Amino acid sequence: MVLQYDGTCYHGWQRQKGTPTIQGILEERIQRIIGEPVTLIASGRTDAGVHAIHQVCHFITRSNLHPDSLRRGLNSLIPSDIRVEKAEYASPDFHARYSARSKTYEYKILNRPEPDLFLRFYTWHVPFRLDLVKMTQCVSLLRGKHDFSSFKSSGSGNMNPVREMMLAELQASEQDLLRFVFEADGFLRHMVRNMVGTAVDVGQGRIAVEAFEDIFRSRDRQMAGIKAPPQGLFLAMVKYD
Amino acid sequence: MVLQYDGTCYHGWQRQKGTPTIQGILEERIQRIIGEPVTLIASGRTDAGVHAIHQVCHFITRSNLHPDSLRRGLNSLIPSDIRVEKAEYASPDFHARYSARSKTYEYKILNRPEPDLFLRFYTWHVPFRLDLVKMTQCVSLLRGKHDFSSFKSSGSGNMNPVREMMLAELQASEQDLLRFVFEADGFLRHMVRNMVGTAVDVGQGRIAVEAFEDIFRSRDRQMAGIKAPPQGLFLAMVKYD
Repeated sequence: MVLQYDGTCYHGWQRQKGTPTIQGILEERIQRIIGEPVTLIASGRTDAGVHAIHQVCHFITRSNLHPDSLRRGLNSLIPSDIRVEKAEYASPDFHARYSARSKTYEYKILNRPEPDLFLRFYTWHVPFRLDLVKMTQCVSLLRGKHDFSSFKSSGSGNMNPVREMMLAELQASEQDLLRFVFEADGFLRHMVRNMVGTAVDVGQGRIAVEAFEDIFRSRDRQMAGIKAPPQGLFLAMVKYD
Repeated sequence: MVLQYDGTCYHGWQRQKGTPTIQGILEERIQRIIGEPVTLIASGRTDAGVHAIHQVCHFITRSNLHPDSLRRGLNSLIPSDIRVEKAEYASPDFHARYSARSKTYEYKILNRPEPDLFLRFYTWHVPFRLDLVKMTQCVSLLRGKHDFSSFKSSGSGNMNPVREMMLAELQASEQDLLRFVFEADGFLRHMVRNMVGTAVDVGQGRIAVEAFEDIFRSRDRQMAGIKAPPQGLFLAMVKYD
């Protein structure tokens, strides 16, 4: 299934007892429709407040309900801040997480003195002037195959910290809006938010581009700057072969 | 005071017992701060679900609390979907409604087959293809001084239906987003939503541009097309001399 969701009202993807989560809501409603419990596997877990424009998940079932009937049934049962965009049969060896070739995250910053009420759940409001040239230099350093340990958060476990970053861009398209775009073969926990937060430290003049590079090369997560807040982060795409 | 609000969770501007309204919330919190009841007068009442990027209101008080202290105090007491942008003393003959020289409304349409979860409270989703050339012709007809009776809703009372429309535009700037902009010396009840809805009838090919003109000239509100839903409407500016 391909999903969109507004993460504002949820404690992230992962099922938790007693709190609303995307996985929890969907599993409960799917069970109500097909009459058997299911376990949803997503391409990756998103944190509380993080959004998805394109999230992919799968589950195994004995139900022979047509996927599109499931999609329509689900959309009528779930809250309007989650939408099932597409549902289809997958081959038995498809795995939403392990089969993913790349994931793309976007991070949006509203960079102007005044906040915008209508963007409060969808951007990080940074009121001070940012040096976009320096921030773009930071972002460029991230392209390619690197050990991203400096930008992981605790609780990342002992995952291989080497990731290939195919795309790392900073766009200043719309008025006062900055948009980071990162496409990689995988992301460590809080990696995008730590990269963005540290790049903002540079943009604000608190540290130099060289310091950003030192932090990145140090592979020491204690070195990194602030972690950008969740509401600016969007899972934008997951690609499969 | 200059206000911004997201109208999604409110039953409009006007105070109503037992339901959350912008006026109700603000009056109650102002009273809590200055210790006396006040009556807020806005440049105009917005309906349930309608937003304000720039709404102006005034009230009369004996309090000598500095306006900026009131602004900061209020912002700390009201929900985050209402913001006081500015508060200042006005001259005794200022009236938020009667002193207004013009008001500007914007109406946003998302025009593409698929809805956008993140815009569901801020646009009208029109999934069928719209003829923008014809819609622009309709919008052009509205410029100037006219009797707008055809586009008022019942309950408008016996207000003078003649209004001067200084600006009437249809912009197709951002991707899939259409934006109507109307600036006039005043608006009748539901006037923008009725104009937009009838223009969409033309864009969809249900009626011709000539029919739109006939409706407009007829001054008969029974003739107008559908009324556009509230969530696409924004009060964008109020100008004073």
